[in-house]
Amino acid sequence: MYSQEIFSYQSLKNFAIQVFLKMSCSESDALIAAEALVAADLRGIDSHGVARLSGYVRLWEAGRINPKPNIQIVHETPSTATVDGDAGLGLVVAPKAMQIAIEKAKIAGTGWVAVRNSNHFGIAGYHALLAVQQDMVGVAMTNASPLVAPTFAVERMLGTNPIAVAIPAQNQPPFVADFATTTAANGKLEILQRKNEDAPIGWIQNKAGDTSTNPNELKSGGALLPLGSDREHGSHKGYCLGAIVDIFSAVFSGANYGPWAPPFVSFLPMPPNPVGLGLGHFFGAMRIDAFRPAEDFKANMDNWIGRFRATKPAEGYEKVLIPGDIEREMQSERLENGIPVIDAVVADLRALAEKMGVEKI
Amino acid sequence: MYSQEIFSYQSLKNFAIQVFLKMSCSESDALIAAEALVAADLRGIDSHGVARLSGYVRLWEAGRINPKPNIQIVHETPSTATVDGDAGLGLVVAPKAMQIAIEKAKIAGTGWVAVRNSNHFGIAGYHALLAVQQDMVGVAMTNASPLVAPTFAVERMLGTNPIAVAIPAQNQPPFVADFATTTAANGKLEILQRKNEDAPIGWIQNKAGDTSTNPNELKSGGALLPLGSDREHGSHKGYCLGAIVDIFSAVFSGANYGPWAPPFVSFLPMPPNPVGLGLGHFFGAMRIDAFRPAEDFKANMDNWIGRFRATKPAEGYEKVLIPGDIEREMQSERLENGIPVIDAVVADLRALAEKMGVEKI
Repeated sequence: MYSQEIFSYQSLKNFAIQVFLKMSCSESDALIAAEALVAADLRGIDSHGVARLSGYVRLWEAGRINPKPNIQIVHETPSTATVDGDAGLGLVVAPKAMQIAIEKAKIAGTGWVAVRNSNHFGIAGYHALLAVQQDMVGVAMTNASPLVAPTFAVERMLGTNPIAVAIPAQNQPPFVADFATTTAANGKLEILQRKNEDAPIGWIQNKAGDTSTNPNELKSGGALLPLGSDREHGSHKGYCLGAIVDIFSAVFSGANYGPWAPPFVSFLPMPPNPVGLGLGHFFGAMRIDAFRPAEDFKANMDNWIGRFRATKPAEGYEKVLIPGDIEREMQSERLENGIPVIDAVVADLRALAEKMGVEKI
Repeated sequence: MYSQEIFSYQSLKNFAIQVFLKMSCSESDALIAAEALVAADLRGIDSHGVARLSGYVRLWEAGRINPKPNIQIVHETPSTATVDGDAGLGLVVAPKAMQIAIEKAKIAGTGWVAVRNSNHFGIAGYHALLAVQQDMVGVAMTNASPLVAPTFAVERMLGTNPIAVAIPAQNQPPFVADFATTTAANGKLEILQRKNEDAPIGWIQNKAGDTSTNPNELKSGGALLPLGSDREHGSHKGYCLGAIVDIFSAVFSGANYGPWAPPFVSFLPMPPNPVGLGLGHFFGAMRIDAFRPAEDFKANMDNWIGRFRATKPAEGYEKVLIPGDIEREMQSERLENGIPVIDAVVADLRALAEKMGVEKI
């Protein structure tokens, strides 16, 4: 394992706030962005937290992020809105778009917001959870830079396009599903690359479309595989899911879809002949009392979660998990004992502090 | 291969109408049900078409299907409704619920309908497509009898819980994803059982939770596996998807969820201590012009479909498919040349004709 340093949630958040302020974000936007970003570290999704902070800065330096966006509704009905993020940080645009979905739901029962002209929004689960605080089911998805080949293909056409769904309960913690629509998220490949270990069969293919265990395959024209891995194991379903996320996020909104989705890394050029504006997201908020009295829904959710938690586990496994269990336990643990950050990321953050002229973390 | 007989779409539909009329369905309901049922045969999903007709009849004989249901809205907001299907045929309840979603969307931009007290609704894609005719995106899902073990579990807790999403285009045919949230649908296992062939690794587990290639494993306590097959290949994501479908279909509506979902086959008893009413479904209709001018959306969808169809295929594959291609081509072919029905099903339909006193097909 790598050596690592422990930071408190507050110190990482404060550091991120300082960096966003130096990018000329407003104070309120810097806070919104930092909370969304560091939520990933808190929940154990280290690939999407402060490890990406310098990536956002580089996108800003490249002129691809507008730190003072005029985020506005460009089209709406009682239960829908299309939002233009004005090239803002996805970390800011997404919570604001989710808030619009929540406000729509308060009146219309549900609210659905498509977003164009945005950027990487951190972890989908964070945004979906914003609805849960209001006794609503939250839905969040985003398209992303193309890394995934459809079933039978050798071209990278879709991003890892995650879907998050968060569902409130009464005494039980909320159900929070948050997953890439690929067999394995790109962050897992990056870990194997650092460790110089093979990937399991079924995660990636080489540029000829053959299964590969080389975690560096993406650097030589390979691709991630849709959830299901191959046709026989349902990769066409993972392809459907990734495609649905792409269309909901980018065709509903007028963002770039498929192979035109802008890359997160600033050293890759923007795809030529864009078909829309920036990256796209899609959010939903559904009031639980738009379907049933809230107490009935929550009592059933408590029972659902309790029953599934009591499912008989296979031998060698302690228990069956409810979506969100691992991240919630990680969050408690890290709020109490701090967040371990690997040395490479600590070094990156310290270099960033120096570059941006903020206090060293 | 089996020997088979060819029937016209119209003759199968007429036969189904006669059977539903003998079950005391109204004329309009018999037509609605027959169209939903035979749509499966037309689209090549033979497991869900007339092959199931005698199963519906047996459920009616067992008193589990009410042929004259009072289908009604029991709760609503501008963009939502909860519908009680009054134990009607899912084949009737589902199109009516989808119609309510469509009517809601006309006014509120989107419409979302949770259904309780229903039964098996045929193929999800048929219902989702009803929205496409109105320039809306259609969503349909349902829970189903428990056959699927969550990741790390040996108990059957979820159904194959399909999701369908249908999206209109302009000159291109609609995008129609329609898939079980398991690695393989139960119908595929039934085919292997008949052929006495092994299942691929990753489709099923035995009652101890170990991978099995025996397609009869479900009869001895085994289970279907969530999309992803095992933890390393993302089965926790398939489990999330199946769980989301279960909760949207049954907890939003007040139907039976998880292991309480009623079985389709009448010889299995209803699970004791039900937690809700019947089976649950969930439908959505989103007006495309609730997000953008319809012509912009459709032009982008045409481009999306064209670009994905042009994806470079891997060697040995002719082309990359768009979700819905196979079923649409099958539908054209079968409308023109008729629908092949295997002998075992033909015999079943003829016995059914005799039993119900309708004209032999």
